[in-house]
Amino acid sequence: MKQVGIIMGSDSDLPIMSESAKILDNFGINYDLQIVSAHRTPDKLYSYSKEAKKNGLKVIIAGAGGAAHLPGMVASLTTLPVIGVPIKTATLQGLDSLYSIVQMPKGIPVATVAINGSANAALLAIKMLASFDDDLSHKLEKYKLELENTVLKKSNTLEKLGYSLYIDGYL
Amino acid sequence: MKQVGIIMGSDSDLPIMSESAKILDNFGINYDLQIVSAHRTPDKLYSYSKEAKKNGLKVIIAGAGGAAHLPGMVASLTTLPVIGVPIKTATLQGLDSLYSIVQMPKGIPVATVAINGSANAALLAIKMLASFDDDLSHKLEKYKLELENTVLKKSNTLEKLGYSLYIDGYL
Amino acid sequence: MKQVGIIMGSDSDLPIMSESAKILDNFGINYDLQIVSAHRTPDKLYSYSKEAKKNGLKVIIAGAGGAAHLPGMVASLTTLPVIGVPIKTATLQGLDSLYSIVQMPKGIPVATVAINGSANAALLAIKMLASFDDDLSHKLEKYKLELENTVLKKSNTLEKLGYSLYIDGYL
Amino acid sequence: MKQVGIIMGSDSDLPIMSESAKILDNFGINYDLQIVSAHRTPDKLYSYSKEAKKNGLKVIIAGAGGAAHLPGMVASLTTLPVIGVPIKTATLQGLDSLYSIVQMPKGIPVATVAINGSANAALLAIKMLASFDDDLSHKLEKYKLELENTVLKKSNTLEKLGYSLYIDGYL
Amino acid sequence: MKQVGIIMGSDSDLPIMSESAKILDNFGINYDLQIVSAHRTPDKLYSYSKEAKKNGLKVIIAGAGGAAHLPGMVASLTTLPVIGVPIKTATLQGLDSLYSIVQMPKGIPVATVAINGSANAALLAIKMLASFDDDLSHKLEKYKLELENTVLKKSNTLEKLGYSLYIDGYL
Amino acid sequence: MKQVGIIMGSDSDLPIMSESAKILDNFGINYDLQIVSAHRTPDKLYSYSKEAKKNGLKVIIAGAGGAAHLPGMVASLTTLPVIGVPIKTATLQGLDSLYSIVQMPKGIPVATVAINGSANAALLAIKMLASFDDDLSHKLEKYKLELENTVLKKSNTLEKLGYSLYIDGYL
Amino acid sequence: MKQVGIIMGSDSDLPIMSESAKILDNFGINYDLQIVSAHRTPDKLYSYSKEAKKNGLKVIIAGAGGAAHLPGMVASLTTLPVIGVPIKTATLQGLDSLYSIVQMPKGIPVATVAINGSANAALLAIKMLASFDDDLSHKLEKYKLELENTVLKKSNTLEKLGYSLYIDGYL
Amino acid sequence: MKQVGIIMGSDSDLPIMSESAKILDNFGINYDLQIVSAHRTPDKLYSYSKEAKKNGLKVIIAGAGGAAHLPGMVASLTTLPVIGVPIKTATLQGLDSLYSIVQMPKGIPVATVAINGSANAALLAIKMLASFDDDLSHKLEKYKLELENTVLKKSNTLEKLGYSLYIDGYL
Repeated sequence: MKQVGIIMGSDSDLPIMSESAKILDNFGINYDLQIVSAHRTPDKLYSYSKEAKKNGLKVIIAGAGGAAHLPGMVASLTTLPVIGVPIKTATLQGLDSLYSIVQMPKGIPVATVAINGSANAALLAIKMLASFDDDLSHKLEKYKLELENTVLKKSNTLEKLGYSLYIDGYL
Repeated sequence: MKQVGIIMGSDSDLPIMSESAKILDNFGINYDLQIVSAHRTPDKLYSYSKEAKKNGLKVIIAGAGGAAHLPGMVASLTTLPVIGVPIKTATLQGLDSLYSIVQMPKGIPVATVAINGSANAALLAIKMLASFDDDLSHKLEKYKLELENTVLKKSNTLEKLGYSLYIDGYL
Repeated sequence: MKQVGIIMGSDSDLPIMSESAKILDNFGINYDLQIVSAHRTPDKLYSYSKEAKKNGLKVIIAGAGGAAHLPGMVASLTTLPVIGVPIKTATLQGLDSLYSIVQMPKGIPVATVAINGSANAALLAIKMLASFDDDLSHKLEKYKLELENTVLKKSNTLEKLGYSLYIDGYL
Repeated sequence: MKQVGIIMGSDSDLPIMSESAKILDNFGINYDLQIVSAHRTPDKLYSYSKEAKKNGLKVIIAGAGGAAHLPGMVASLTTLPVIGVPIKTATLQGLDSLYSIVQMPKGIPVATVAINGSANAALLAIKMLASFDDDLSHKLEKYKLELENTVLKKSNTLEKLGYSLYIDGYL
Repeated sequence: MKQVGIIMGSDSDLPIMSESAKILDNFGINYDLQIVSAHRTPDKLYSYSKEAKKNGLKVIIAGAGGAAHLPGMVASLTTLPVIGVPIKTATLQGLDSLYSIVQMPKGIPVATVAINGSANAALLAIKMLASFDDDLSHKLEKYKLELENTVLKKSNTLEKLGYSLYIDGYL
Repeated sequence: MKQVGIIMGSDSDLPIMSESAKILDNFGINYDLQIVSAHRTPDKLYSYSKEAKKNGLKVIIAGAGGAAHLPGMVASLTTLPVIGVPIKTATLQGLDSLYSIVQMPKGIPVATVAINGSANAALLAIKMLASFDDDLSHKLEKYKLELENTVLKKSNTLEKLGYSLYIDGYL
Repeated sequence: MKQVGIIMGSDSDLPIMSESAKILDNFGINYDLQIVSAHRTPDKLYSYSKEAKKNGLKVIIAGAGGAAHLPGMVASLTTLPVIGVPIKTATLQGLDSLYSIVQMPKGIPVATVAINGSANAALLAIKMLASFDDDLSHKLEKYKLELENTVLKKSNTLEKLGYSLYIDGYL
Repeated sequence: MKQVGIIMGSDSDLPIMSESAKILDNFGINYDLQIVSAHRTPDKLYSYSKEAKKNGLKVIIAGAGGAAHLPGMVASLTTLPVIGVPIKTATLQGLDSLYSIVQMPKGIPVATVAINGSANAALLAIKMLASFDDDLSHKLEKYKLELENTVLKKSNTLEKLGYSLYIDGYL
């Protein structure tokens, strides 16, 4: 059963949005991956959003850039939580995407992550699921511990080597 | 026959969006005035947009603030030209509205006017109609002349009175 | 059992953050409401975050302004999903709060809502819970319908009265 | 008969502005393509704008960057609708162009599209013409359908291949 | 003989632009004060600019807000130096005015001062004249000295009184 | 002996800059309070900065707004650490002040605090002194504890009263 | 006799600032070219500024980046008109330079040109001189005409060749 | 004895943050260099900060990017002065880092330097130490003199060679 839906406005967003998929793969969570353009496929936007809950999804991750209407429009058509990923743009660096996604009116929230924060979108989805799934919660604890240990190890290496050797050898 | 549709995302936008209506009133153009929220009435958004052309509209003016998806979503659902009015917001002054409306992806343009530029949206609609309507074109010429004369008269008064008396008497 | 934790960096954020509480009240969801300052009460920040899950919370809503570190720091100390509310500031209008909350590094997401979007933070929390609670899901459907009907009714009134009478009578 | 005028402030804008021309070529619409600099050829700016309507144009597309005065000045000198294309700049990314074009005063609208949104400017022009031309309207419907089908096909391919193979093969 | 021309796009700019006039009054410099709107009186813009030098002007001060094209267009039509005053706007605080005035293309400079910096525009004009007028140069030296002494005196008072009494008595 | 110098570019900055003085008063630290304008009293800027160390100062707090050159210029003329306070401005909200103060070139640092962060400037100065003064260090610990307790007490009151009564009674 | 002084804060600004020198060379105007850092050579800043007028200079062009204090500080130390060139920066694209230069307080104007607008700074200086020098004024007229003719010729070529051949052959 | 602590949120910040270390090396000051992530190693953040003073540190330099909470959180956990270095980011160029670091609430200052201003952070730390260390103070005087002489020499070379030869030979 697929618990997470990942959609994006254009296949040019795939290199970023595939980071969501990879994180979910690592956590063993099934997901559905599609292209849904708010502006180019408005009918699919409707049908996708209205059937998302019936299809078993628990949360939707939507990435879009520029006048990024996809996350907000999906959120207006389903009761599922929607996570919005503002995609970096060539002219305004994703500030347009960020404002278009985060500044939603009262009544229709979108859970917005950082510009190009696709990996974090998946982690946020997992956090939502983990509140009701102890196994997943333990995996998150483990993931958190690994993050911590990676940094601690790097710091030890840095303290041993000094910055010159570290930069040469590890960066 | 109503040629222009004026819609807005919330009745709180009406004080600004009514300026569009007033301009159209002055030019004797019939219009349709409704509230259509992209996020709160997504079904009406679809039906309104898909029937706009059949209903005889030639152009649609859509005002919205914040994550302002209304103009772009309407534009994705009709072949009519859509004019977007970014409404000033309490936190980001309408910059969010502007970016959400103007930065549309290739394929789905929205004709964006200034933040709170509702009167200009109506004038732009009239310009579109006037390209195919000589009477309207003459009215625009007259309007332009009146704008010009108003400024010229004010300048004459200023030159006669000097800035002190002008500020006291006319501002 | 309290399912939602609402915290804020300062009691000056309460007028905004109480909107979260009101929404939760309306949906009949128990919550915990506290002041936790990342900078002034760092020890409470740690104990609150580390015990949140044990205390039965499913999601945390954290509001903060300026260099708004509270949501991100809580997110780093718990596996629960954290919703961040950027509070509007006197100098930078909440842009500083927004950037400080949304631009989290890979590994530690914060679900960010609009500047001062406290009501939406609660609705987002409810959406998360509702994915695992059919009753709540139906309440959300009803809420959505009410939003829709309110707008439709307002639009009907506007179409009947015209903008002048509507502005005089309803705004 | 040429229905659309395309002008730009400098030949360095041509790579972007030629996208307008290509779209019009695809739709079989005749256009006039010239360089008109508001600042370097102010006399041509006047004569071009004042004769545009007499020359049969129905709409003008004007691209400019930086302190981008061309679209607004043309709009002040003709009753034709003017579409402004803010060109991306080396220092401010086109934000200067956008503000200079979109923030027009009451009385003189410019229909502004996205930064570098030259293709959309042509589509907007076509939408304006299509409101009075059923053939063109059908072509727009067809174009819209093609956009939709392209996205739907890509999504199908993505669902079949998964993100890894899609990125390798199609991006 | 009038040496300085002061123009503005709208009489609503007069409260700010009259500060230029007051400074020139204080320095005993004759000036010409008019309203010239780039968009509403484009013909006057042309005639004013092309005749400015013949009329004896040595420098022009032009204030405008929003898509502020006046200073740049005047600069394109005369060889006189043009000083641009970006007027603060209701939505973008004058950032639109600033970008529209300062970001001129190569070949057509505008000497831009601060947002609402009308008094400084006059002082800049005086500095230009004073490079060729020793009397004026001495007056500028005297003005500079007065500025200095005013600050020095205030500082002495502050040091004597302390901040509490100073705030109560002098602010 | 005065250990801290507080200067500001204009007496209009005094309401903000006096917050520095109040904090220093509370900690029993002697300071010198003067108006020094980088632009209006450049000679005093030089003499003040070059003599600051000889006069026994250990750190200088400098507040300025707009093109805020005071902190950076003082820093270029003394080896003492300089703390810059960007004053909020009427047009750009202090963003101009912030950029002018914080973006110093390599070689000449200014320790920048928040826009209008005058109280924090004093606390930062105290932190610098306290690194070499155990008494002061203990006072800082006590101050920190008081901040913490104030927040904890407020949170307790909020938890007891609920948000409605708290807002009515305490805000 | 050198009429124009060109200074810059660092030799890294020379590639941009040499454009000023080239323009002056083309117009046959003598100038003085030096590096003067407000922060690294504050004493030279003083002596240079205070002697500029005695040395025969009529106008000073000052380029600087980041917290760009050079133009404003020179302006505070001389009665000569000072033209500021905001240099593009690696992080904030020159927005920091622009704000630091243009937002000067009342009493001390800096004539600011576009970010990296060094060529225009020279043209502005020439315009100032040309108000009192008929020969120079004629040269400016000629320069203006050449700019115009260059654009007109390019436009003719574009109209003849069409955009494809033009892009291939001329861009 | 190590007087300065240098920490950073990620080893990807090391190329920038090592500039702090190099400056301290040049001045012969011992320092401690570690990676401490506010979000990935929150426990180390606590222990590091709470023990910093006991470990003999006099000042801490903390670099971080994006939602940069490290400097502020350290400052909330120690009475030592904390210098924050906003690291340039891929999407928002470090504006997010700058706002997250500089806009601290009353009570908890962070001494913020320029985006990527790591070298200046070290110089600021040295200035703090030098207020209580005459040897260090003399070294700073010498450093300042060297900066000055380097610029003066470059200017002499530029004046001798002219800009063309200088650009060819020295840039």
